[in-house]
Amino acid sequence: MSERSGPSVRADYRMFRTIQTRWMDNDVYGHMNNVVHYSLFDTAVNGWLVERRLIDFHGGRTVFFVVETGCRYFSELAFPDVVTAGVKVTKLGTSSVRYQIGLFRNDEDVAAAEGFFVHVFVDRTTRKATPIAPDLRLALDTLSA
Amino acid sequence: MSERSGPSVRADYRMFRTIQTRWMDNDVYGHMNNVVHYSLFDTAVNGWLVERRLIDFHGGRTVFFVVETGCRYFSELAFPDVVTAGVKVTKLGTSSVRYQIGLFRNDEDVAAAEGFFVHVFVDRTTRKATPIAPDLRLALDTLSA
Amino acid sequence: MSERSGPSVRADYRMFRTIQTRWMDNDVYGHMNNVVHYSLFDTAVNGWLVERRLIDFHGGRTVFFVVETGCRYFSELAFPDVVTAGVKVTKLGTSSVRYQIGLFRNDEDVAAAEGFFVHVFVDRTTRKATPIAPDLRLALDTLSA
Amino acid sequence: MSERSGPSVRADYRMFRTIQTRWMDNDVYGHMNNVVHYSLFDTAVNGWLVERRLIDFHGGRTVFFVVETGCRYFSELAFPDVVTAGVKVTKLGTSSVRYQIGLFRNDEDVAAAEGFFVHVFVDRTTRKATPIAPDLRLALDTLSA
Repeated sequence: MSERSGPSVRADYRMFRTIQTRWMDNDVYGHMNNVVHYSLFDTAVNGWLVERRLIDFHGGRTVFFVVETGCRYFSELAFPDVVTAGVKVTKLGTSSVRYQIGLFRNDEDVAAAEGFFVHVFVDRTTRKATPIAPDLRLALDTLSA
Repeated sequence: MSERSGPSVRADYRMFRTIQTRWMDNDVYGHMNNVVHYSLFDTAVNGWLVERRLIDFHGGRTVFFVVETGCRYFSELAFPDVVTAGVKVTKLGTSSVRYQIGLFRNDEDVAAAEGFFVHVFVDRTTRKATPIAPDLRLALDTLSA
Repeated sequence: MSERSGPSVRADYRMFRTIQTRWMDNDVYGHMNNVVHYSLFDTAVNGWLVERRLIDFHGGRTVFFVVETGCRYFSELAFPDVVTAGVKVTKLGTSSVRYQIGLFRNDEDVAAAEGFFVHVFVDRTTRKATPIAPDLRLALDTLSA
Repeated sequence: MSERSGPSVRADYRMFRTIQTRWMDNDVYGHMNNVVHYSLFDTAVNGWLVERRLIDFHGGRTVFFVVETGCRYFSELAFPDVVTAGVKVTKLGTSSVRYQIGLFRNDEDVAAAEGFFVHVFVDRTTRKATPIAPDLRLALDTLSA
């Protein structure tokens, strides 16, 4: 599925994380502020990476930095909705990975918003790109579309 | 239980809400920033009020404004922890209500942080205090310690 | 200047807003979390619109909703940096406007990050797109590249 | 001045920091969400500490952890207000410091909100309290009321 087509559905994704919205996610228009969607992207991808011990953000020598992000908003999300984030890997390079994420409102099957972000694997001290470690690459590959 | 004693336990609360932490909740010290705890308080209390249709933050003529808050931090919370917020009402006045909230890390029984906030019932337009409506008072009373 | 080229410089923009970073903007890597950049975009554009009384987010019948956003991150921003956001309009349609925003760290002339967002002018009640009002269009046109 | 009296004025404080509000600070009621005030407290105090090189949050062996916070809300703040935070030290112990902070809306002289927080000086690795270093103590003492 092209990222530029209409909203994706749950079956388009490989991994899912459920996230409770918060009161302050709603802005003056009574819906989730467009900024918050990116916080949910980060949470879905990093939650999966941390729980599988694929990154150690406390002491790891290598971590992921974000170099590009984007989002399209199709319909409104709002507190107190529960959001399910669907994730898949759409590109896996030597030292970078591109994720596509769909945000689903409560039990809906069509994404309310859809975005991407690109992680570059870097040495924590030098901040320079470095090849993604083999075990990490294998894990990311299981999310490939 | 006095609010000034040591950390409370789950049995001290009347209502519970579960909230997923987010990547950006962690600050540079690798734990949940002290500000975020208040966002979880808001979310627990308002989530309960909204789902029971006790407030209508979109169009209601009366809403709750926060006039005082506080928190003590006993131990660290951090993404990707799941936090359970326990809530009870410790004071129910004519137009105000004071909640105590304990935040519990994953399956722990002793609160990692404990706080309170005071809601005043106001007319949305005039921003003046007004008596809490009877049905709302009855509902809040079920949370009284 | 194409949005896909390298980082822009201050001279590429038409309007500027200065924003103080906050402690909690920094994530565990000691730099501004990628989500926060979008909050600065919103703040720069809406600050300009509100101060010129071009939108009334409290009571206006028409408001702007965000339908698409994106950002590329070239170098790190971090608390306690002061960020200057440069803004220009790159497309002005019948009921939508596309902004490009560059974020400049302290006194630097090359953008640390660069993004865009697309606002659609909507009726607040029906949430339907409506033509941008003439005075608003004139104002936005002064930001056109 | 007791912390429990009415709103303080600018002359009650020793150090000031100016902070631009952000679009997403406003919640559905069109005013700054009560959580955001704490983010401004953190920003004012830590900004002062970092710029004077009194703490090094990237690599320092000792850092400050927050153990208690509180806030009273007297009047509304809202984007696009500019907030000035006034800070003073109200208690300086062996390994802890208590700050009082007033938040002033635009050019107003009476605080819109007033709070405190208690910092404990800790070893970053062991997370144990340790005596505040002499140079840091001297600096903090200049903020004493």
